[in-house]
Amino acid sequence: MSLAVGVDVGGTKIAAAVVDESGTILQRDRRPSSAQDPDAIIDTVASMVADLARAHPVEAVGLACAGFVDHVGGRIRFAPNISWRDMPVAEPVSQQVGLPVTLENDANAAAWGEFVFGPARDVSDMVFVTVGTGLGGGVVIQGRLLRGAYGIGAEIGHICVVPDGHRCGCGNRGCWEAYGSGTALVREARDLVASGSPRAQALREACAGHAEQLTGPDVSAAAANGDAASIELVADVGRWLGIGAADVAAILDPEMFVIGGGVADTGNLLLEPAVTAYRRQLTGRGHRPEAAFTLAGLGNDAGVIGAAALALASPYP
Amino acid sequence: MSLAVGVDVGGTKIAAAVVDESGTILQRDRRPSSAQDPDAIIDTVASMVADLARAHPVEAVGLACAGFVDHVGGRIRFAPNISWRDMPVAEPVSQQVGLPVTLENDANAAAWGEFVFGPARDVSDMVFVTVGTGLGGGVVIQGRLLRGAYGIGAEIGHICVVPDGHRCGCGNRGCWEAYGSGTALVREARDLVASGSPRAQALREACAGHAEQLTGPDVSAAAANGDAASIELVADVGRWLGIGAADVAAILDPEMFVIGGGVADTGNLLLEPAVTAYRRQLTGRGHRPEAAFTLAGLGNDAGVIGAAALALASPYP
Amino acid sequence: MSLAVGVDVGGTKIAAAVVDESGTILQRDRRPSSAQDPDAIIDTVASMVADLARAHPVEAVGLACAGFVDHVGGRIRFAPNISWRDMPVAEPVSQQVGLPVTLENDANAAAWGEFVFGPARDVSDMVFVTVGTGLGGGVVIQGRLLRGAYGIGAEIGHICVVPDGHRCGCGNRGCWEAYGSGTALVREARDLVASGSPRAQALREACAGHAEQLTGPDVSAAAANGDAASIELVADVGRWLGIGAADVAAILDPEMFVIGGGVADTGNLLLEPAVTAYRRQLTGRGHRPEAAFTLAGLGNDAGVIGAAALALASPYP
Amino acid sequence: MSLAVGVDVGGTKIAAAVVDESGTILQRDRRPSSAQDPDAIIDTVASMVADLARAHPVEAVGLACAGFVDHVGGRIRFAPNISWRDMPVAEPVSQQVGLPVTLENDANAAAWGEFVFGPARDVSDMVFVTVGTGLGGGVVIQGRLLRGAYGIGAEIGHICVVPDGHRCGCGNRGCWEAYGSGTALVREARDLVASGSPRAQALREACAGHAEQLTGPDVSAAAANGDAASIELVADVGRWLGIGAADVAAILDPEMFVIGGGVADTGNLLLEPAVTAYRRQLTGRGHRPEAAFTLAGLGNDAGVIGAAALALASPYP
Repeated sequence: MSLAVGVDVGGTKIAAAVVDESGTILQRDRRPSSAQDPDAIIDTVASMVADLARAHPVEAVGLACAGFVDHVGGRIRFAPNISWRDMPVAEPVSQQVGLPVTLENDANAAAWGEFVFGPARDVSDMVFVTVGTGLGGGVVIQGRLLRGAYGIGAEIGHICVVPDGHRCGCGNRGCWEAYGSGTALVREARDLVASGSPRAQALREACAGHAEQLTGPDVSAAAANGDAASIELVADVGRWLGIGAADVAAILDPEMFVIGGGVADTGNLLLEPAVTAYRRQLTGRGHRPEAAFTLAGLGNDAGVIGAAALALASPYP
Repeated sequence: MSLAVGVDVGGTKIAAAVVDESGTILQRDRRPSSAQDPDAIIDTVASMVADLARAHPVEAVGLACAGFVDHVGGRIRFAPNISWRDMPVAEPVSQQVGLPVTLENDANAAAWGEFVFGPARDVSDMVFVTVGTGLGGGVVIQGRLLRGAYGIGAEIGHICVVPDGHRCGCGNRGCWEAYGSGTALVREARDLVASGSPRAQALREACAGHAEQLTGPDVSAAAANGDAASIELVADVGRWLGIGAADVAAILDPEMFVIGGGVADTGNLLLEPAVTAYRRQLTGRGHRPEAAFTLAGLGNDAGVIGAAALALASPYP
Repeated sequence: MSLAVGVDVGGTKIAAAVVDESGTILQRDRRPSSAQDPDAIIDTVASMVADLARAHPVEAVGLACAGFVDHVGGRIRFAPNISWRDMPVAEPVSQQVGLPVTLENDANAAAWGEFVFGPARDVSDMVFVTVGTGLGGGVVIQGRLLRGAYGIGAEIGHICVVPDGHRCGCGNRGCWEAYGSGTALVREARDLVASGSPRAQALREACAGHAEQLTGPDVSAAAANGDAASIELVADVGRWLGIGAADVAAILDPEMFVIGGGVADTGNLLLEPAVTAYRRQLTGRGHRPEAAFTLAGLGNDAGVIGAAALALASPYP
Repeated sequence: MSLAVGVDVGGTKIAAAVVDESGTILQRDRRPSSAQDPDAIIDTVASMVADLARAHPVEAVGLACAGFVDHVGGRIRFAPNISWRDMPVAEPVSQQVGLPVTLENDANAAAWGEFVFGPARDVSDMVFVTVGTGLGGGVVIQGRLLRGAYGIGAEIGHICVVPDGHRCGCGNRGCWEAYGSGTALVREARDLVASGSPRAQALREACAGHAEQLTGPDVSAAAANGDAASIELVADVGRWLGIGAADVAAILDPEMFVIGGGVADTGNLLLEPAVTAYRRQLTGRGHRPEAAFTLAGLGNDAGVIGAAALALASPYP
């Protein structure tokens, strides 16, 4: 059975794994990332791959990285969290490890993992939405990854859902990400605590009164424990998730939305309001089949598994 | 050279033409549509095709129709202007004329025409936006038409650009179509005339004071003649065109936007504000190549030419 | 005692009167206006003046007219309700009647009337606000009329109070006039009736269920009769009146606002919410003396009385 | 040639100069301000004037100070940055220096400087807008300063342009100053940096990643260096500048807007979007002459030069 190494390069850590053709992980590695030193990251990645390749008959390497990716040229155009600017990545790693290396956007790689081995394994058109700090995604159309003419497609978190709305990490205002993400969840929760409202009691205790220290997992945990205000806050994120998904569906008409990322750990607290809002907002509702909403299946491994699967795919999807 | 008949089935008229492989129209026909009688339209289409096929060695027939189209099954799921509900169309026409018949959404067909023979002939990823009564479109990704899992993709006019905004013909509020279309242009122009504003003088004269009779072509004509208020109204539609296009580009990252439809006859009065707004709104601007904006090239023939081209294409794109 | 004829030229009627130096009207005349025939209006005005001048030893004539007025040149630049475009008015009337003629914007003339003979007679800085179909005004600063560099000053109804708000008669959106006027009162009242709300019962009866026939006086009368919904509607107009007045005060810091026009017949139902909103909104409140709000004193005669007073004033204020 | 001392009393420093009738500065002085000790400031001002008066045959003294000024009584009603509350200022200084002293609001004094010696020297109706930390202004109507009934006129920065908008330093929400000022520029720039957007790269470097340390001059400098995001931020301030100016023009109809203050150092990056927005927003546009927009000519000296010119003017304008 063919094996590949999948690598997920993040701003703070690098995860790598040997993955087989069935999506099973045989061995893992994880090291800190040196986001400010572009060459050091290349060396770390190559070293991790080399170590894993010594232990397994690996045929190929798949790299997943946040940012605008030129997957044909194996270059990063621009990475938000790593100091890579228009930098060749596939080639230098390949030279160090002596294996073919493919490069893909991390959300695309995760989407591909969910598409091949996760809940979307039986559909041909799907949208993966990761609701974490940001709102990212990957799109599969008729079994092929949507990349766009310049490799910057599927930046779904940056459609504008509220003109002149909250500032987004991309610099614009009103992006879907500014409403349907963990960042939005934390912003609204901190605002609620800071307002002095008695409804924020559980959240206030969770952060010992320091609103600015409140985290997304704090809110998720409070919601899971039945705190009414936190359940509403998660539901608000879910509602925006559904509203934006209706925009995406107007363009893409997918068969399935696969929802991953840290906020998705709240499960139905997020998903049910999302589906309700989606059904209320979808254009042509009543005259069309509606996409299913499903929680992602591969968790944090989606990136490495998807990257490995892409490395083994031929032709490249 | 292979020939096909392209047919564009509208709510008030049916246009048909014999088209060759280079996109040239050899002969045309045009008849009124009987929107309330589903079977009569089938018969009219078949009769038009048969007449044209007698005069030319036609190999295939392409039908284009507004609505949600199941192109694989050759069925219309739902047509907004014709009383077709989940109705087989390709097969009955094929039986009457003895030729293979393909069925496609009309905006998709027009997009394909512009993609194969129009300004997008040298690109692989493009979005066709038709700014007429509504705002419709078609999407080509890596040389293939985007249809969606259920044939309802590329309904780009129904992404929401203003929460709780103007009511759209689809029943929702705030759709892109409610801001970037001829309907929006007319709504705003009538509002301006009805307000009694002196700025509306030229528009008031164009409709002899009857605001409710003002048409989109009236406004376009006044704008072309230099009327300042009409130029502003067209520019407002253009601005929204650019804003929505930035949403579409966040998802699709196309190489080109091709702008057609009646309002596009205003040319740069529409296009320049659209490009300005697009550049101001596009996520990641400055770190990515930007799509070109171009006026469509085939005019009202895009539908019949595109439908014919699709009928001759193998495999079906 | 010096006498002058004051003339108030409107779109549907022309009012004229002989007025003495104390603001007392000695004789009146009133004739229909032929808004579409510019020269006919001149002739009618001259005829009215000549008739009055035969009965009284009149020394001068003051004309008041809606629109952009070049009072130095005695020309109308632009009149919204009469077909005068850049038209000399003072000179042709003067030639026909053999008296000196001055021309002034009608709201300015009315403001001057209230300033000299009305409740503002003891102040030096005042703003006259007429709340009728539109929201107009006149401004007196240190005893001089504010006209602006081009005669278009004091168009106070067209400051923007709500970005992208309701369409105004001037063609813009969100003007003060679109919120603090009889037009706004009627729009909101009709909307309320049309909504089917049980609160609109009295208003629904006032128009026999035909929302589109409801008038401002209907709403004012219902409010005066104690109808709770109508009182709220008048109060909403009053609230906007106060909000806009705070903007005006930020620039002009007047000693008094004089409120006239048809809607002002509702008296304190309008004025109290206006003052409340003004005090809540005024910048620097608590650290500054506040302008008084007073109902106008001259009613519909303000225009003719003010025009006559301006004609007798030397130097022209 | 008559000479006067002009003094500009600020919260952190006091600037004084001997100025002749042509507006030329002959000698300067500058000392720190002791904002918390009202009497100490009086003494410092008197000492500076006395020193300058020993070197030049000065005839009069003009004081300019931020706040609500009763120029007739020579008192400060309220000063935002100095602990003066209803405090006589002209008289105590006059007693110490043995010269006539006039007191004026600082923006009024600067406006007068620009009116007499700057770009507005040939017009009679102008509005000076200073776009610095705040948005202040001064107004000249028919050659006279607009002060209002209580000396609090021309507080143009505190008209409301966005209901319930950003909090302003005056305590209200949505003031023009909260959108068209250096404070707004910095707020939006810090927001952009804090968002983590890659578009903020140049701004992030300018403040070494500490968004809260970013200054207006940082943004202006980055814009001048061609940073796309900073240019957009300056343009946004400019756009609001034009929108508010249209409100001011609806009331005042000036011949010229003179734009000064620190943000105006960005020149056309600010002015062009301002003019574009102004022309789009002005009521009655197309039927009226439009005010010119010009950069101020006297820079930081406008206050002392204007104060000196006011001290020499008779009658006081």
